Amino acid sequence: MIIQHADNEFSLITKVAGVFPRHPSQLNQLFEADGEIISCSSQKINYLVAKTDSIQEEISTGLYKDPYLIGWMAVTVSLSDLAASGADPIGVLLALQLPHAYEEGWLTRFQKGVREACDLYQTFIIGGDTNFTDIISITSTSIGTSEKPLLRKRINEGDLLYSTGPLGIGNSFGYSVLLDQFPTFSYAPVARLKESKIIREFATACIDTSEGFFPALSLLATINNLGFNIKVDLEKVLCPDSYKLFLKKALPPWVFLAGPHGEYELVFTISPSRKTTFENACTVDGWNPILLGEATKSQFLRFVSAGVTIACEPPEIANIYGSSNGNVRHYLQLLLQKHQQWSTKNTAFYANKTS
Amino acid sequence: MIIQHADNEFSLITKVAGVFPRHPSQLNQLFEADGEIISCSSQKINYLVAKTDSIQEEISTGLYKDPYLIGWMAVTVSLSDLAASGADPIGVLLALQLPHAYEEGWLTRFQKGVREACDLYQTFIIGGDTNFTDIISITSTSIGTSEKPLLRKRINEGDLLYSTGPLGIGNSFGYSVLLDQFPTFSYAPVARLKESKIIREFATACIDTSEGFFPALSLLATINNLGFNIKVDLEKVLCPDSYKLFLKKALPPWVFLAGPHGEYELVFTISPSRKTTFENACTVDGWNPILLGEATKSQFLRFVSAGVTIACEPPEIANIYGSSNGNVRHYLQLLLQKHQQWSTKNTAFYANKTS
Repeated sequence: MIIQHADNEFSLITKVAGVFPRHPSQLNQLFEADGEIISCSSQKINYLVAKTDSIQEEISTGLYKDPYLIGWMAVTVSLSDLAASGADPIGVLLALQLPHAYEEGWLTRFQKGVREACDLYQTFIIGGDTNFTDIISITSTSIGTSEKPLLRKRINEGDLLYSTGPLGIGNSFGYSVLLDQFPTFSYAPVARLKESKIIREFATACIDTSEGFFPALSLLATINNLGFNIKVDLEKVLCPDSYKLFLKKALPPWVFLAGPHGEYELVFTISPSRKTTFENACTVDGWNPILLGEATKSQFLRFVSAGVTIACEPPEIANIYGSSNGNVRHYLQLLLQKHQQWSTKNTAFYANKTS
Repeated sequence: MIIQHADNEFSLITKVAGVFPRHPSQLNQLFEADGEIISCSSQKINYLVAKTDSIQEEISTGLYKDPYLIGWMAVTVSLSDLAASGADPIGVLLALQLPHAYEEGWLTRFQKGVREACDLYQTFIIGGDTNFTDIISITSTSIGTSEKPLLRKRINEGDLLYSTGPLGIGNSFGYSVLLDQFPTFSYAPVARLKESKIIREFATACIDTSEGFFPALSLLATINNLGFNIKVDLEKVLCPDSYKLFLKKALPPWVFLAGPHGEYELVFTISPSRKTTFENACTVDGWNPILLGEATKSQFLRFVSAGVTIACEPPEIANIYGSSNGNVRHYLQLLLQKHQQWSTKNTAFYANKTS
């Protein structure tokens, strides 16, 4: 059954937003104010942190089909940036562009995704806007506060490079849904807000891998005029589902980390002098960061992918997707061509150039 | 000449966002952090106020054609809600959905609109997101702080109803662009942030007329279980361009105030005991609020439109646009039909019912 929208604004807003719990410090109920007003009880705020992020291409390409996933990601995408900035959320605003007609149950499942993500992050939808158009699109804006904001810069040569977890799920999910046509695993990445509380006490820089690990690394390298030497074979940092795909499809491990669809882990750097204290703090908190390598003066990314040693310029991998004009099948071809180059002559070329 | 987008993210973001001045308290430059970080220097903040608002229908219907206007409105729409909530802005985040190809000069004019609006409001673009799709759409999110937030509720019977300025420009502009095909005047409404500073010291409730005067009044009436008696003939509160159209096209004045396209004035209520003090404060500040009428226990809107006395239920006018399914020509027909009804038998009916 298809729902056609002829609701007036009152009943529409109630239907879309009325199901979400209110922020306990929000002064206004639905309709009661033009803006969303959050009481801070004369709180001293050192830094306000905000981020706006739209989800549209993921929906229009068919990558995000399940409205639950769309709802989950609507909350997660901008909160992940707050986590990477060392901030704790106050709440999320959602601007929804919904189609004029959609299947019954769509809104309910979307709302379930939003609500369960908010529950996990212990945060709230504080406001939003709903419009109707032909293309589903969601703009998520998170607002938070920080005592110790994290930037992407201030990395020193020799700083250790970590991630909050295994990598590769974003591209694996993309491969599975868009190319393999047999999705065998689910995708619901978690904004690393919990881990951010420890990371901000130690890190010299931090970024999320919303667009993949190598695009994140490219930004860190470019902003800091540094390179990175990944000391662990990338095969070992793949998440279980990526590892299965790696074995089954014989795709090079680095391809799973090339973006543009990421895993929303945090990638960050720590001074080597604080390695033990940091890792102990994580253990006490119940999680284990993955030590990937270190920042180098040489402005190249060096890594080993299933035994193949590779060195490339920082944006080299990140730029491949752009060359594909968004055609996923062509993108995979370009990635495999690049691997072919590296596996033969280019490895030697780059190794000479950067040694 | 048409611009095709094959920029990488770096050059694209620089091209779109690099032209805007940075917020003086923003910790991060472009690319330097995942979130936008604003130093508050341990500021005591009583209330945070935020609002997200999308512009899409105005563009897709051809109402907003000039990219300067689109840029101007991208900043104004959400700041107007901050003004109505008694807040002062920290900054604005813009999520842009731009077409894959657009005419040369489009972006430049859009940016000029954004920049000149920010200059007027003395605020800043603190962040954003740019995506490409087939339909232009902009989501504007404003963040601010308040010591004295304003709600739409808490109106008492007998409270005086004011607006910050003359009304009708929104619908007049719509008529002129979409129906008359001879636009003879411009539209660039101003978020009433300056006026809000005084209003918040006096008002019992406030709302902006972003969707028109009568839709705003309908919300105030419904939320407060009250009605309003407009004591000045609506002909007298029309802005000059609306007044010209009223004379030239013989349209009833209330039609200009019916929405859905508003003038972004503030409409607010003040206790009669504070009338003189309030009006004096406005005079000192260099502007004159327009006294429209008062809140009534009787839950009707009563007004005079070019000599015709009308009483209607609060949402009666606001709901007409929904019945037109967004067809502007049909909407005008429905408005004129309604006026016809009122001009004959219904005036007597309502007058009896509410006397």
